[in-house]
Amino acid sequence: MRSDLDQLMQERGYAALLVLGGTACNPPMYYLANGASVTENTVLVKPRGQAPLLFVSAMERDEAACSGLEVRARLHRLAELRTEAGGSEMRARARWLVELLAEAGVRTGAVAAFGQIDLGSGYALLTAIGELNPRLKIVGGLDDNLLDLVRTTKDAHEAGRIRAVGRRTMRVVAGTEEFLTSHRARNGHLVHKDGSRLTIGDVKRRIRELLLAENLVDPESGAIFAIGRDAGVPHSRGRDRDPVALGQTILYDIFPAEPGGGYFFDFTRTWCLGFAPPEVEQAHADVLDTFKRVRRALKPGELCRGYQDLTCDLLEARGHPTLRTDPTTTNGYVHSVAHGLGLAVHEAPRFHSSPSNGARLDPGVVITIEPGLYYPERGFGVRIEDSLWLNPATLKFETLANYHKDLVLNVKR
Amino acid sequence: MRSDLDQLMQERGYAALLVLGGTACNPPMYYLANGASVTENTVLVKPRGQAPLLFVSAMERDEAACSGLEVRARLHRLAELRTEAGGSEMRARARWLVELLAEAGVRTGAVAAFGQIDLGSGYALLTAIGELNPRLKIVGGLDDNLLDLVRTTKDAHEAGRIRAVGRRTMRVVAGTEEFLTSHRARNGHLVHKDGSRLTIGDVKRRIRELLLAENLVDPESGAIFAIGRDAGVPHSRGRDRDPVALGQTILYDIFPAEPGGGYFFDFTRTWCLGFAPPEVEQAHADVLDTFKRVRRALKPGELCRGYQDLTCDLLEARGHPTLRTDPTTTNGYVHSVAHGLGLAVHEAPRFHSSPSNGARLDPGVVITIEPGLYYPERGFGVRIEDSLWLNPATLKFETLANYHKDLVLNVKR
Repeated sequence: MRSDLDQLMQERGYAALLVLGGTACNPPMYYLANGASVTENTVLVKPRGQAPLLFVSAMERDEAACSGLEVRARLHRLAELRTEAGGSEMRARARWLVELLAEAGVRTGAVAAFGQIDLGSGYALLTAIGELNPRLKIVGGLDDNLLDLVRTTKDAHEAGRIRAVGRRTMRVVAGTEEFLTSHRARNGHLVHKDGSRLTIGDVKRRIRELLLAENLVDPESGAIFAIGRDAGVPHSRGRDRDPVALGQTILYDIFPAEPGGGYFFDFTRTWCLGFAPPEVEQAHADVLDTFKRVRRALKPGELCRGYQDLTCDLLEARGHPTLRTDPTTTNGYVHSVAHGLGLAVHEAPRFHSSPSNGARLDPGVVITIEPGLYYPERGFGVRIEDSLWLNPATLKFETLANYHKDLVLNVKR
Repeated sequence: MRSDLDQLMQERGYAALLVLGGTACNPPMYYLANGASVTENTVLVKPRGQAPLLFVSAMERDEAACSGLEVRARLHRLAELRTEAGGSEMRARARWLVELLAEAGVRTGAVAAFGQIDLGSGYALLTAIGELNPRLKIVGGLDDNLLDLVRTTKDAHEAGRIRAVGRRTMRVVAGTEEFLTSHRARNGHLVHKDGSRLTIGDVKRRIRELLLAENLVDPESGAIFAIGRDAGVPHSRGRDRDPVALGQTILYDIFPAEPGGGYFFDFTRTWCLGFAPPEVEQAHADVLDTFKRVRRALKPGELCRGYQDLTCDLLEARGHPTLRTDPTTTNGYVHSVAHGLGLAVHEAPRFHSSPSNGARLDPGVVITIEPGLYYPERGFGVRIEDSLWLNPATLKFETLANYHKDLVLNVKR
């Protein structure tokens, strides 16, 4: 949690954190700058044991003040350094960052770097900083990313924000269900009043209207609303021109966020309009039963990878292929049962079943539970997903938003 | 342009480009994967002289196919490498990338890295690749970023897409103007039918509805719609609770994009409802005159920084402070006159006036022109912005979307 930050910096011997970039598409900056609307030339320095300093363009001084942090307008120094650096943007920026670190009192020691700038540029920039001031050691890594760790556990305030996104998402889902069931069926498809077929595109337009009404945004390019065979390919988003047919699986996976780079929710239901074929009923029952058993098995402190193993056990026992029995299968159970959720739609803890995955269900984690079964050649896919928080005060898992898990939606004919 | 890519790679001696991440918030991947809806574990390798290979999760195989590229499902190899790497995600990922590069035929030489992964992680990852295969030299830099360069000039197809975003943006702006002028004025403010004051928040809600109707999104956290003193601080976005008063500058800067990480437009107008105070009329005249002169002075091949100097000349001659006369001023002309525009709202060419800025108006550039004057203590700011393309076929600058530049909007009282 946020409150662990200084202690973790102490344990690792970090003198400071250095974060680059604006708050959009950049969870590390959003997290430490408290969501203030700052843009790409922003630099945040957090020395160990001290509050962060936020260095911005003067044009953003008022927005930056919304962070609650001390704000300093220093972009003009970059302009001056460009002239001195004789043509190298890299050298100018590296000098500027060394200067900002020094202004924050950071001249020696390990500095952990975070944020969003283009990959190749970042590599070169961090190298250049180390060359300019060899007493600074830039660190960063996939195995021990401090901000990933801190963001993994959410306090009651953060959980409350995610819960609020969840509440609004449930209204979007309810509005989507209502939109579907308000259309009559004719010849095996939902139709408009004029008799023309309702399409996936029509539904997606309605989803966008519902999201707007709830002041939610879709940073990850849009909800999944996929029917039939497309539902059998887990990340296929659905094709606008597909008609909304009865009796086929509709896989609806929505992951909206607060505007401005804030918290995500993640939620999936699978619906069949009017009726479901027996094999789909069976697959849904298998997934729902697995969901309930995994949910019941969640225990604070347990290894995350154990739940992936459990899910494979349960679904293999019901006769389905899994990535454990065949790592390249595209039939059966073909992904992880869960992931962490927060300022990114996928974050720690991870649930892949490698023996090296030591992640645990620590108090404060926000996770999804999302078993699924996919048979694209048979024309269907099923997934059920909820998001939960392990309340550190009670050590109990709380579902952050509730919705029915029925498969068949009744339609008027 | 896209068509220059292999030649530039040849000139620089690059064996391949390596791009990481999904297409959301990641122009390099969007550009090379042609906007396909792929997510965070995607890897693209483009060997010199060959078409790119797109390595994805099997779950995204159908979406990835929309790229038109050859697609290979290889995420299962990362899962296997995790087990072999005994606990280090970094080592597993580095090995995986070396393997994917090898599969693409890239085993030696310079590899330029691009994309969006967290800064610290990227730094460590690229270092690890070089350690695993010392015959690969990872390159990246702010000074010679190949994809930035290629993206700077747009062919007719790309310009057409930006123009289309511009057309839709003009409908949003017209709808916003119509929304404002459809409200009556009372006691110096716009009011609802019930007599309560219209707020900035009301207008922003209307802007979001208009954007939705035009299928545009706001990846950079929302348009600027700021009134009075807030208009005097260039990136202040406007406060929802502020009432919409007559006679104060309303600075409306909108920069929406195609959904899914696509092309941006960028556009600003400044309006006063009912009337404008004389000093605002003067500032608007100064900005509009400067706009027209800069527009007229645009010539293919010219140095970009010259236009910043010209703008400072023109506005200083009219008695305003500028960043040239005082680099820390927050009054007068306080930013660049222009920037490139494309898959990012700010891209090359840059217009800062450092002698080291060698950027030129190359055929195909898409740029904004946006002079402004800001006097927050006097309670106003003015900016006028259009976006233009230097058509390589005609070597003429074309305004990509047109809208009136009047200051005063008439209101009903």
